[in-house]
Amino acid sequence: MERHFDEELTALKNQILEMGAITERMVSDVLKALMERDGSILKSIEENENTVNRMQMEIDECCLKLIALHQPTANDLRLLMGVSKINAELERVGDHALNISKLVTAIIEHEQLKPFIDLPKMVEIARGMFKESLRAFVELDVDKATSILLRDDQVDELRNKIVDELIQFMCGDSSTVQVALRIILLANNLEKIADHATNIAEVVIFVAQGKDIRHHAEPLT
Amino acid sequence: MERHFDEELTALKNQILEMGAITERMVSDVLKALMERDGSILKSIEENENTVNRMQMEIDECCLKLIALHQPTANDLRLLMGVSKINAELERVGDHALNISKLVTAIIEHEQLKPFIDLPKMVEIARGMFKESLRAFVELDVDKATSILLRDDQVDELRNKIVDELIQFMCGDSSTVQVALRIILLANNLEKIADHATNIAEVVIFVAQGKDIRHHAEPLT
Repeated sequence: MERHFDEELTALKNQILEMGAITERMVSDVLKALMERDGSILKSIEENENTVNRMQMEIDECCLKLIALHQPTANDLRLLMGVSKINAELERVGDHALNISKLVTAIIEHEQLKPFIDLPKMVEIARGMFKESLRAFVELDVDKATSILLRDDQVDELRNKIVDELIQFMCGDSSTVQVALRIILLANNLEKIADHATNIAEVVIFVAQGKDIRHHAEPLT
Repeated sequence: MERHFDEELTALKNQILEMGAITERMVSDVLKALMERDGSILKSIEENENTVNRMQMEIDECCLKLIALHQPTANDLRLLMGVSKINAELERVGDHALNISKLVTAIIEHEQLKPFIDLPKMVEIARGMFKESLRAFVELDVDKATSILLRDDQVDELRNKIVDELIQFMCGDSSTVQVALRIILLANNLEKIADHATNIAEVVIFVAQGKDIRHHAEPLT
């Protein structure tokens, strides 16, 4: 019984890592398509999103079965609850990647507004945060997870700078309204991906140490 | 032991219903402030959001303890996993209400663009969906939950109409860019609240029937 449980738990971990790898590729692809202005990279996004959705349901079912059939210890139960939470985060990252993909398709139809400086920076940080949140989970590495939390504010600041600059464009030249609005929405989706990376990092700390550090900067009223 | 578990389960249900009531009031308040252009209604939003965040952590801890200490049956385990999922949805609704609150504060500083027709419609439908998703959970009412799922497309359509109309404003008169952009972002936050209502409705069906109907409209590739 015990060995069977360990095998199933390992299989579940592999499944969530595979789902993580697919969403990571989705994020990487849509951002590459944006930076290189190449829509051909987006071909597999919808298929990947369907796969991620299917895996979300399979992983949730598997978590429920493992908890119901075995009586996991505190550590294993925390891991299973953690997998269930990361599962939900990854599915949402897939949604945001699909949103970005649609925005990129429309954005690259128009001439580029100007060479961006803050957007590539934001892309690099957000993509890095998401990638590392998955590594932190694989290794249950609390230090790596903690370092991700510290970068969320940078992403928010860059997003705000990008939005302010694009508003200037829209006010100055109405022909830029449509494309500038889409870049604003894209930056918002990217900011959400960084949020999900932060959430995953918080789950890693919870699984590794049993500490719930969410909403850490807020007063407990 | 069994009676103790039932009591704790009832207490947990009451806690999530209280959290639902607070988020429902937050959503109701920010939309009232928007419609009546009255910022004084927004005073308690931040305090309520802190309360929702604190409750999210308490409820998650309680779910974990109940699963770890007792060996819940399939039905009770499904309920506990469902509470944990609804907990995450409610916390995000609180985030969106806070975002809307900040946008409303900025929007009502400016003169109204025009009397809106689609926005009040969208407000009514999204607010109704969220309210009913909580009722469906209280009553574990599958019919009510199903009726919510059918309204999500209407919200998306209204959001798209609102965005298209606001783009026309921004293109025609650059002095409307800032306020129109904020209304677009507000409509996006509102659309997300409707999404969360849909997610809650899907959890209700899962808890009541054991059926996972998420991503139902998508092919399983």
